[in-house]
Amino acid sequence: MKPGFGSDNHSATHPLILESIIKAQIGHAPSYGTDEYSTEAVQIFREKFGPKTEVFFVFNGTSANVLSLKCLTKSYHSILCSDVSHLNVDECASPEVIGNCKLWALSTSDGKLKLDQLKNSLIRRGDQHFSQMKVVSITQPTEYGTVYSVDEIRQIVDWAHSEGLKVHVDGARLCNAAVRLNVSLKELITDSKIDAVSFGGTKNGFLFGEAVLVFDPDLREDLKYYRKQMGQLPSKTRMIAAQFTAYLKNNLWKEIASHSLQMARLLSENTATIPGVKITQKTESNVVFAIIPKNWVKQLRDEHFFYVWDEKTNECRWMTSWDTQPDDVMNFVKKLKELSGEISTRELS
Amino acid sequence: MKPGFGSDNHSATHPLILESIIKAQIGHAPSYGTDEYSTEAVQIFREKFGPKTEVFFVFNGTSANVLSLKCLTKSYHSILCSDVSHLNVDECASPEVIGNCKLWALSTSDGKLKLDQLKNSLIRRGDQHFSQMKVVSITQPTEYGTVYSVDEIRQIVDWAHSEGLKVHVDGARLCNAAVRLNVSLKELITDSKIDAVSFGGTKNGFLFGEAVLVFDPDLREDLKYYRKQMGQLPSKTRMIAAQFTAYLKNNLWKEIASHSLQMARLLSENTATIPGVKITQKTESNVVFAIIPKNWVKQLRDEHFFYVWDEKTNECRWMTSWDTQPDDVMNFVKKLKELSGEISTRELS
Amino acid sequence: MKPGFGSDNHSATHPLILESIIKAQIGHAPSYGTDEYSTEAVQIFREKFGPKTEVFFVFNGTSANVLSLKCLTKSYHSILCSDVSHLNVDECASPEVIGNCKLWALSTSDGKLKLDQLKNSLIRRGDQHFSQMKVVSITQPTEYGTVYSVDEIRQIVDWAHSEGLKVHVDGARLCNAAVRLNVSLKELITDSKIDAVSFGGTKNGFLFGEAVLVFDPDLREDLKYYRKQMGQLPSKTRMIAAQFTAYLKNNLWKEIASHSLQMARLLSENTATIPGVKITQKTESNVVFAIIPKNWVKQLRDEHFFYVWDEKTNECRWMTSWDTQPDDVMNFVKKLKELSGEISTRELS
Amino acid sequence: MKPGFGSDNHSATHPLILESIIKAQIGHAPSYGTDEYSTEAVQIFREKFGPKTEVFFVFNGTSANVLSLKCLTKSYHSILCSDVSHLNVDECASPEVIGNCKLWALSTSDGKLKLDQLKNSLIRRGDQHFSQMKVVSITQPTEYGTVYSVDEIRQIVDWAHSEGLKVHVDGARLCNAAVRLNVSLKELITDSKIDAVSFGGTKNGFLFGEAVLVFDPDLREDLKYYRKQMGQLPSKTRMIAAQFTAYLKNNLWKEIASHSLQMARLLSENTATIPGVKITQKTESNVVFAIIPKNWVKQLRDEHFFYVWDEKTNECRWMTSWDTQPDDVMNFVKKLKELSGEISTRELS
Repeated sequence: MKPGFGSDNHSATHPLILESIIKAQIGHAPSYGTDEYSTEAVQIFREKFGPKTEVFFVFNGTSANVLSLKCLTKSYHSILCSDVSHLNVDECASPEVIGNCKLWALSTSDGKLKLDQLKNSLIRRGDQHFSQMKVVSITQPTEYGTVYSVDEIRQIVDWAHSEGLKVHVDGARLCNAAVRLNVSLKELITDSKIDAVSFGGTKNGFLFGEAVLVFDPDLREDLKYYRKQMGQLPSKTRMIAAQFTAYLKNNLWKEIASHSLQMARLLSENTATIPGVKITQKTESNVVFAIIPKNWVKQLRDEHFFYVWDEKTNECRWMTSWDTQPDDVMNFVKKLKELSGEISTRELS
Repeated sequence: MKPGFGSDNHSATHPLILESIIKAQIGHAPSYGTDEYSTEAVQIFREKFGPKTEVFFVFNGTSANVLSLKCLTKSYHSILCSDVSHLNVDECASPEVIGNCKLWALSTSDGKLKLDQLKNSLIRRGDQHFSQMKVVSITQPTEYGTVYSVDEIRQIVDWAHSEGLKVHVDGARLCNAAVRLNVSLKELITDSKIDAVSFGGTKNGFLFGEAVLVFDPDLREDLKYYRKQMGQLPSKTRMIAAQFTAYLKNNLWKEIASHSLQMARLLSENTATIPGVKITQKTESNVVFAIIPKNWVKQLRDEHFFYVWDEKTNECRWMTSWDTQPDDVMNFVKKLKELSGEISTRELS
Repeated sequence: MKPGFGSDNHSATHPLILESIIKAQIGHAPSYGTDEYSTEAVQIFREKFGPKTEVFFVFNGTSANVLSLKCLTKSYHSILCSDVSHLNVDECASPEVIGNCKLWALSTSDGKLKLDQLKNSLIRRGDQHFSQMKVVSITQPTEYGTVYSVDEIRQIVDWAHSEGLKVHVDGARLCNAAVRLNVSLKELITDSKIDAVSFGGTKNGFLFGEAVLVFDPDLREDLKYYRKQMGQLPSKTRMIAAQFTAYLKNNLWKEIASHSLQMARLLSENTATIPGVKITQKTESNVVFAIIPKNWVKQLRDEHFFYVWDEKTNECRWMTSWDTQPDDVMNFVKKLKELSGEISTRELS
Repeated sequence: MKPGFGSDNHSATHPLILESIIKAQIGHAPSYGTDEYSTEAVQIFREKFGPKTEVFFVFNGTSANVLSLKCLTKSYHSILCSDVSHLNVDECASPEVIGNCKLWALSTSDGKLKLDQLKNSLIRRGDQHFSQMKVVSITQPTEYGTVYSVDEIRQIVDWAHSEGLKVHVDGARLCNAAVRLNVSLKELITDSKIDAVSFGGTKNGFLFGEAVLVFDPDLREDLKYYRKQMGQLPSKTRMIAAQFTAYLKNNLWKEIASHSLQMARLLSENTATIPGVKITQKTESNVVFAIIPKNWVKQLRDEHFFYVWDEKTNECRWMTSWDTQPDDVMNFVKKLKELSGEISTRELS
C-alpha cells in the first residue's frame, strides 16, 4: 500500500520504538507489569507528568477510554462529551455497555466543548430519575484536529471540579496538542488538574499499545481490577512499556508530533487556495478537513488513500503521521491541482 | 531475569515470529483487518482448521474467552466449566461482568470435565428461575497440563450438541495438546465439531496476540461488533496477523509445542524419583506439578523462578516454554537433588 | 393531599380495579403466572390485541420499556427515540445499563419522531465501530401529550421493517391515544405491526402493574428469562393480572381514558384565552402544557399541585387522571383567572 | 385452588394488610416515596431497626437481593453465599448480570454457611486476576428452613468486618427467624451489625412488596439511583408502604410468623413418625423437608399441592403460611398416614 492520508493507524512503527521492543523482548521477564521495562516506563511517565502519576498500560484506545471513565463513575453516572467524539460515535457503545454509563453528547461545530454549553447542560442534580452527570470528556486534539488551549482546558476543569465533576482527556494523539501549544505534558495535563487521560501510542508510531493515566492514588485499586476484567491487562507488559520508554525518552514524542503537524500544515497551506478545495476546520494538529468535488475522490484515492468524512457534503479527512513524507504531500497537492485544472491551465498558457 | 519456570508468558518472542512482525510493520497498511497480512493469516488458519473457519484477532486471552462465550450465549445462559479453569478463577469475573453470563464451576481433580459429571449437572431445563446452561467450556490442555483425548472431546461435544449446548475450547496452549495427541488441529477441533476456540499466541512465543475461531458463519456478525465493543479490535491488525502466519507456517507451531513438551518431560522424568518430590499430575503438556518441602522454595526460586500453586500443600507449578533450555532443566534438577540431599550424600560416599 | 395536576400516578385506584384485586387475592393460587387470573387476563389481552399476543406482566414502567428493548436487541444495537422520551431522560440510564444498548435521542419539538428525521438518522449500517440502530421507540401519547396518527405510526413501522428495524411503543398511557384516535387497540398496535409495547396500568387507575406485549412467539423464550433476571417476575401474578382484566373488560379502559382526556380538554379550553397563559402543545391526551408567569406558581400550587416542566421558560405541566373532577379543573381555572386579573377586573367594573 | 403447602407466595393477603392498602389508595398522593404513608412506614421501620435505618421499598425479592449487593460492591467484587441460596440457583443469574458481580457458592448441608468454611474460602486477597470477595450473604431463615442463631450471625459479621467484608441477609421470611429465636428485629439485625437486609413482604401476607434496609447513610445515595435504574422504584409507593406499616404495627409480623411456624411444627411433629416419611432438616421455620416414597406424590398433591425439591431422592418441601389452617395440616397428615398404611392397618385391626 502506498503511503496515504487514511489514518495515523495505517502508519509503520517508528524505528526507535521498534528497536526498543526488539531489545525488551529478549529473554525471560516477569509478567503483568512487574518487569524492569514497566518500571522504567512508569518512571519516565512520572518525570513527564509528575510523581503522583499512576500508569496502566493497555492494548487499545477504545478500552483506554472506557477504563478511564469506569474508574470515575458508578452506573448511574453520565459523561458529557462532544457529539463527534470517538466515545459517542466510534466505540460501538462500549462506554454504555462495557463502561456501564450514559453519554450526553453535546453538539459541537469544531469538536470542542464550550464552557457555557457545559454549564447549560448540567441539569437535574440529585434527581433519581435522571442519570447524574459526573465526567466531562474532551478529546485533545479533537476528532477535527482542533486544539483546546491550556486556558480553555483549565476553565473547564475548574468549573467541573467546582460542580463535583471529573475531567477525562481522550488523548490518542495528545502529544500533537502539546507540541501545537508548545507546552509540556505536565503543563497540559497535570497542572491543569485533569483527572484521567487516555494516552495514545498506536497512532503515534507504536506497534500497538496505550496507557491510562490517573493522578489520584485512590483510583489505583479500582483500575487494577477493572483493567483485568476488561481484558486489558497485558501479560507481556514489557512489550508495551518498552515502546513508551522509547517514545517519551529524548523527546521522541515531540519529534514525532512536530513532524506530523508540519506535514498537515504543508498540506493545508498548499491546498487552501486550490479552486474547488474548501478547508473546513483549522489545521491545528495532524489532519486537514476539506470539501472537494465528489468526482475528484476516486482519482485522488488511487494515489493516496483517505476517507470521505461526510458523504453528504463530500468533506474529506486527510491525516498525516510520523512517516508522512513531504513528497507524499506535494504529490497529493499536485494531483489536487491537476483535478482543479489549475496546473493544466497554467501550462497551457 | 534468569530463565525460569514461572510461566510461558515470561518467555521471549520466537525469532521467526519476531522476524515476521518486523517485516509486516513496514510502511502503510489499512487498519482493522483489511490488510494483506490479515488476509494471509486467515488463509493459513483456514488451511489448518478448514475453509469455514472465521478468525477474529484479539489482544488478550481473557477477552478471547469472554468473546467466545459472548457470541454463544444470551444473558440468561450459563457456562459449565472446571472449578480450576481460568474462566472461573483467573479472569476477575470477566465472564460474568463483561460476558454477562453465569458460570457453573464443576469440581475436577485433574482439570478435566467428565462426561458423567456434565450429564448430572444439566438440570432445570426451561425453568425461568434458573440460568440455562448453554455452553461447555473445556481447557485443552487443562490448567494442570493434562490433555483431553480426541475421544473424550468428541463424546463431550456429541452429548452437548444433542442437548442444544455448544462447546468452547480455551486453547491458550492448544498446539501443545495437538502435538501431545499427535493429531492435526483440524482433527482436534474442526472434526470434533467444536463451536468456538480461544487460540493462543502470547504463551507460544508471540509478542502478544490471540485469535477467536468459530466455524459457523452465522456467528460472524455478532463477533464483529462484540469484539469492537470489548476493546479487542486491533487497529494495526497486521501486527498480530503476521505473528500467526509465522506460527502456523512451516509447522513452527509443532516445533514450539514439541520443544516445550520435551522440556517438561525432561523435568518430570528427572525429578519424579527425587526423595521429597511428589509429582501430582500427569505431565502431558508443558508443565509439571509437584509437591516439595516448603523450605526448599526460596533456594530453588533463587535459581529459577516458579509459582507455588497451592500454599497449603506446597504444590508447585513448573512451566516450560519454547525457549527453555535443557541446561535450565538439568540445573533445576541438580538443585532439587542437592536440596533432597541425594547428591551430597552420594558425593560423600 | 388535595387532588391536583401533578401526575396520573398521584391518583387513586379505580374502584372496579380495586374490587378485582380484592377478589383475586382471596385464598391460595399458584405463583409466577400459572394461576387462573393470569390466564383470564391473557385471554382478554388476546381478544383486544389478537390471538398471537404474548403478555408479560411486570411491576414497573421503566422495566417494561427496558425489557421490551432487551428482547429486540443485542448489546451492539441502538435505539432511536425522542430526546424528551422517558427512555432518554427519566429512566436513570436503565436502557443503557440494564438493557445494555445505546440510545440515539433525536430532537423533537412536540415529542413525536418524524419519518424523515428517522431516515436521515439511519447511518453507518454494517460499520463495526458504530452501534447499529435496531429499534425505533415511540411514546404514544408522547410525553407532551401529543398523539401519533395511525398513519404516522404505520409509515414509521413500514419504513423500519423495510430497513430491518423493529418498533417499540412506550404506552404507559396507550389507551388515551386509542380513545383520542377513536380506534381499537388492535387497529392502533397489532394491525400497525408494532413489535413490542409497554402497556401501562399504574397511570390508568391501577394499584400498580404494567404489561409487556409482543406479537412474535419467537420472543417469548427470551422474555421469560429476561423478565425474571430483571426482577420483574411477580410471584403473586394474580394481583396484577386481575387489575388488567378489570381494566380491559367492559370497556373500562375507554371510560378511564375518555374521562382523563375530557378533563384535559376542559382545562385547555378554559385556560387558553386567559391573559398570561400560553398553551404550548396541542392538547391531545390527558395533559396540558402552558407557560405562565413565574410568580403565579406558588399560589396555584397551594390549590392544586403540578410540576414546572421547564424552569427556564416556566412552562408547566398540568396532568389529569381518571379521578380528576370537573370542579378541580374549574377551581384551577378560576384561580388562574384571578391571578391573571381577569376576574377581579371584571368584578370591579 | 385448595390451600396447600406449595409456597408462602401462594397465600392470600392478610386482612389487616389488605385493609391498610385499601385505605392508603384513596385520593391523590405524591409519588416516589414523598407521601405520608411512606413517611409513616419508614418511621415504624426505624422504631423496629433503629433510627439510622434507611428504607428502600421495592417490588420484588430478586431485586431486593441484587440491589442490596449492588450497593455493597464494585464489579470486581464477589459474594460468598450458600450453594442452595436463592441468589445462586433461583435468580436466573440476576446477581451476576444485573448486579454485576460474581458469586462464590459454598457447599452447605443445611443451607447455613459455617464460619470456618468462610475463613477457608477467603483467598487471593489483592490478586488482580481474582474477583475479590467483598460480601457474605446469608439467608435467614435458610432455604431449608433452618435458622442461624444470633451468636452464629454475630460471629460471621465480626469476622467479615475484621476482613473488610460486608454482610447481607436475604430475609424474605426474616420475621420467622426472629420469632423462632425469640428476639427483636433490632437484636437480630441492627445489633448484629448486619450491613444490608432484603426484608420480605410478599411471602408474609402482602399483596406484593419488599424493602431493602441499610444502616449506613453513605449507602443512601447509591441506593436511590440503583433502585430507579433497576426498575424497582414504585411510583405509587404508598401502596407498598402502607402494607409494611400494617405488618410492623401492633406486632402483626409476630403473629403471622408465629402462626406459620406453629403450622410447620404441627406438620413436622405429626409426620415425623409416619413410616415411609423421613424428615431431612430441622423444622425451625415455616417449612418441612421430608423424603417420601415417589408413588405417594400424586395422591398427596391432589389434596394439597407441594413441590418435590429433589427429584433424585424424592425429597419434598411442605411450606406453611399465615393462612395455613390446622385442618389443612391434619388433613395432609391423615392422607400421609393412609398412604403409609398406618391408618388402614390400624382400622383393620
